Amino acid sequence: MNVAFIGLGVMGYPMAGHLQKAGHQVAVYNRTQSKAEAWVETYGGTLGITPAAAAEGAEIVFCCVGNDNDLREVILGEQGALKGLKAGAILVDHTTASAEVARELYQAAQQQGSHFLDAPVSGGQAGAENGVLTVMVGGDQEVFDRAEPVIRCFARQARLIGAVGAGQLAKMVNQICIAGIVQGLSEGLHFAKTVGLDAEAVVEVISKGAAQSWQMENRSKTMLEDKFDYGFAVDWMRKDLSIALNEARKQGAHLPLTALVDQFYAEVQSLGGGRWDTSSLIKRLDAFKQR
Amino acid sequence: MNVAFIGLGVMGYPMAGHLQKAGHQVAVYNRTQSKAEAWVETYGGTLGITPAAAAEGAEIVFCCVGNDNDLREVILGEQGALKGLKAGAILVDHTTASAEVARELYQAAQQQGSHFLDAPVSGGQAGAENGVLTVMVGGDQEVFDRAEPVIRCFARQARLIGAVGAGQLAKMVNQICIAGIVQGLSEGLHFAKTVGLDAEAVVEVISKGAAQSWQMENRSKTMLEDKFDYGFAVDWMRKDLSIALNEARKQGAHLPLTALVDQFYAEVQSLGGGRWDTSSLIKRLDAFKQR
Repeated sequence: MNVAFIGLGVMGYPMAGHLQKAGHQVAVYNRTQSKAEAWVETYGGTLGITPAAAAEGAEIVFCCVGNDNDLREVILGEQGALKGLKAGAILVDHTTASAEVARELYQAAQQQGSHFLDAPVSGGQAGAENGVLTVMVGGDQEVFDRAEPVIRCFARQARLIGAVGAGQLAKMVNQICIAGIVQGLSEGLHFAKTVGLDAEAVVEVISKGAAQSWQMENRSKTMLEDKFDYGFAVDWMRKDLSIALNEARKQGAHLPLTALVDQFYAEVQSLGGGRWDTSSLIKRLDAFKQR
Repeated sequence: MNVAFIGLGVMGYPMAGHLQKAGHQVAVYNRTQSKAEAWVETYGGTLGITPAAAAEGAEIVFCCVGNDNDLREVILGEQGALKGLKAGAILVDHTTASAEVARELYQAAQQQGSHFLDAPVSGGQAGAENGVLTVMVGGDQEVFDRAEPVIRCFARQARLIGAVGAGQLAKMVNQICIAGIVQGLSEGLHFAKTVGLDAEAVVEVISKGAAQSWQMENRSKTMLEDKFDYGFAVDWMRKDLSIALNEARKQGAHLPLTALVDQFYAEVQSLGGGRWDTSSLIKRLDAFKQR
């Protein structure tokens, strides 16, 4: 199938690669063109000089960029993908963005006879590289059914959660849960170290019960080793939490802990940790302790 | 082996039962004597009129009561277990209490030639009934080695974490982690409901990734059904968090989220939820929403 991929960041680069390896003909676009050139050299496929050029002739155009504004530019802009998109084609957006921009793009696609799915992912860089992402999708069932087999090239699971925007809202739930888990785990490990416990032994025991979490199983060891290069960066988490907090404000949901943890992440940024992974909340607690 | 069990609450009652069923001769004491009588009727064993009487002749005296003060009374009091404890015997305390009282009891036992282990448990009422508790132990290795096979009558795992008090401190780490997880999960599910998502579908998708937790897997369904009768009560959680927060204050650990969630639990109590399980934090968020 002719497809396109717009945005070859740490996520998009390997995702697009899985599409090409699965036998699809992929046209790629990236703002920094040298990256797109490197991709074509590695995988084959073709280079689009603009998003519109990449989208031309594609059945499905995938997109994975930074934020709402980047999205509007590469989709709705002068040379945006919608300009090249043929009638009946599907635009699948893997960016974590607002539900609002998802609705905006859905309508813009509809107006020219094409389709849109908001489809943010979880699983991180490792999930993208190994093709085992989880994809949370909002949009129409028949459009999802057409896109799903292709999405599966880089995903272990893809699920339609509801109408347009529902994928983004589900991703927000994911990030809200993580914020609480990571801060709780950080306080637990910080406490363990402060009172002189063998923290690894404690984790081994409590990770079989009600305190267990993916974060505990996968991050506590590196947190205790003061290593924060193992996952999703604080700068990106803050973007995601700001989207969730804005949506909550609009709809009247209460997120006191999420708001607080967002502020803690701001303090991690002030410690120079914008590129550390999200488990660096413990470093903020330890930093107070050292003074 | 002759053993004793002091405190036949929702935890102690079945724990003592497992000991008797495993072939030990159990002498029981309970403040409300009718419960101890019922226990003897069910399991056999013998009734102690006082903690001291129950402890007489026992190789190991188990204890599971409410808090530090209850503990001091049944162990150190006029008719406390230490009065009946023979030289070389072991006192194993399963109460969740402070590390301070653990050290106090350890020394008192030592002064009369006997031994003490602080051994708080996790796994809740179901874990006690099914004999699959997790036991976090502080004390001396050789004492632990003697007690462990007997503890195993009601535990799936028992682990010596460190010197006296370490069991209690490990339990605090457990409760701190849970506080963050449950509040995060509550905000996630409250958000999902508020924005109109199919929350069960969202949980199904995100519970395979970085937002996964034991709490998500075991409590989100009941939380969404507004059922809060499935585990450890808010009143008890507040007791445990107050122990952790006091210890943190003494030792200079920072627990901002734990302190906040403790306050949220105080609000759940104000809503009449002292006996609801810990997952009722979502009810507090939903309560605001309804107004």
